[in-house]
Amino acid sequence: MVKQERAARTRETLIRSAAETFDRDGFSVASLTAISSLAGVSNGALHFHFPSKAALAHAVEESALTRLLALTGEAEGDELPAGASRVQLLVDVTHAIAGALRGDPVLRAGFALSGELSRPGPGDLRERWRHWVEDTLRLAELEGELRPEAAAGDVVTAVVAATVGFEVLAVRDEAWLSAATVTRFWRLLLPTLIPADRLAGFEAAGTDRRPG
Amino acid sequence: MVKQERAARTRETLIRSAAETFDRDGFSVASLTAISSLAGVSNGALHFHFPSKAALAHAVEESALTRLLALTGEAEGDELPAGASRVQLLVDVTHAIAGALRGDPVLRAGFALSGELSRPGPGDLRERWRHWVEDTLRLAELEGELRPEAAAGDVVTAVVAATVGFEVLAVRDEAWLSAATVTRFWRLLLPTLIPADRLAGFEAAGTDRRPG
Repeated sequence: MVKQERAARTRETLIRSAAETFDRDGFSVASLTAISSLAGVSNGALHFHFPSKAALAHAVEESALTRLLALTGEAEGDELPAGASRVQLLVDVTHAIAGALRGDPVLRAGFALSGELSRPGPGDLRERWRHWVEDTLRLAELEGELRPEAAAGDVVTAVVAATVGFEVLAVRDEAWLSAATVTRFWRLLLPTLIPADRLAGFEAAGTDRRPG
Repeated sequence: MVKQERAARTRETLIRSAAETFDRDGFSVASLTAISSLAGVSNGALHFHFPSKAALAHAVEESALTRLLALTGEAEGDELPAGASRVQLLVDVTHAIAGALRGDPVLRAGFALSGELSRPGPGDLRERWRHWVEDTLRLAELEGELRPEAAAGDVVTAVVAATVGFEVLAVRDEAWLSAATVTRFWRLLLPTLIPADRLAGFEAAGTDRRPG
């Protein structure tokens, strides 16, 4: 294995080990020794890649942000197929993010770092998620997908607050990120967003039509 | 001032100082020295009342729980007046809790301690809140207040997740706990819960009819 390649792999391993340690112990308590030991590298090797715990947290956030952008389809600048529903895209992406949060400590730690007051949040994932939800619902509104009574801003508030709630409550009880929970939420909300005569075309449980 | 009275006041001051310090620094980082110094007492006096940081956190949670029970009306075993709406009670209580979270570091710290994985959560406030929302909505369903299409369980999921989301997001941006945010949420949700012909009797912005 070429030297640079090995270095890149060690870096990835350290990011994942840091995410797992932040996830388990919290950012403030997590120790660099626990992280390097989980990664199976020396403290010296850790410091070669990351001079501080803050630098590691920053790398975890960047890595989590890349995953989030892939899940929302922003990464490849994906365009929705003509006629595809932005609201269904939103439903599908919340399911995809819940699934990813269940299985991926890097994404989980990236979101949790958004709530750490003890450090600035340059790549604040919750804020980034809010922006994407806002953009998606504004477009749905512009394109006439929403019921006239549904104010896009109210929907943004409810969707962002509930999804962040799922993420936080799942720390103690994983069922909050289950497909069933996310489906229940959309089953309740979809009739307020979508005109009744078009509701049958929507899947609260998500579809696999999501781009990316 | 009688000796016991002075001791009780010092205890209260310490609980409030601990809550403010947990709120600012997080439970894991908060130091006992910062807490005693904020309370204006010696380290020895702090240790006389609370042998450990965990004991202090427990006292903060107990104190926060008392406030939560007062806000939900469970404290005095309040009965709703005949004919009063359980759903309006739920709306009013979420407004009252959001207002209390804005101004009361003890309640804020009590809720935040629910998310601290590094310690067991004996008086888990978020879990307690979930129970109250569940009981209230089951009663609303039994009493025929909800639309037949609205499954009480779906509503519980959405309300608990969104309110916990408000609480967590407000750590970085207080607007998430503003009356306007809570009103927006209910403006969106009420039409899914309440039959259209009775909707005019409900106030998304809350009423002062809450008991207790």
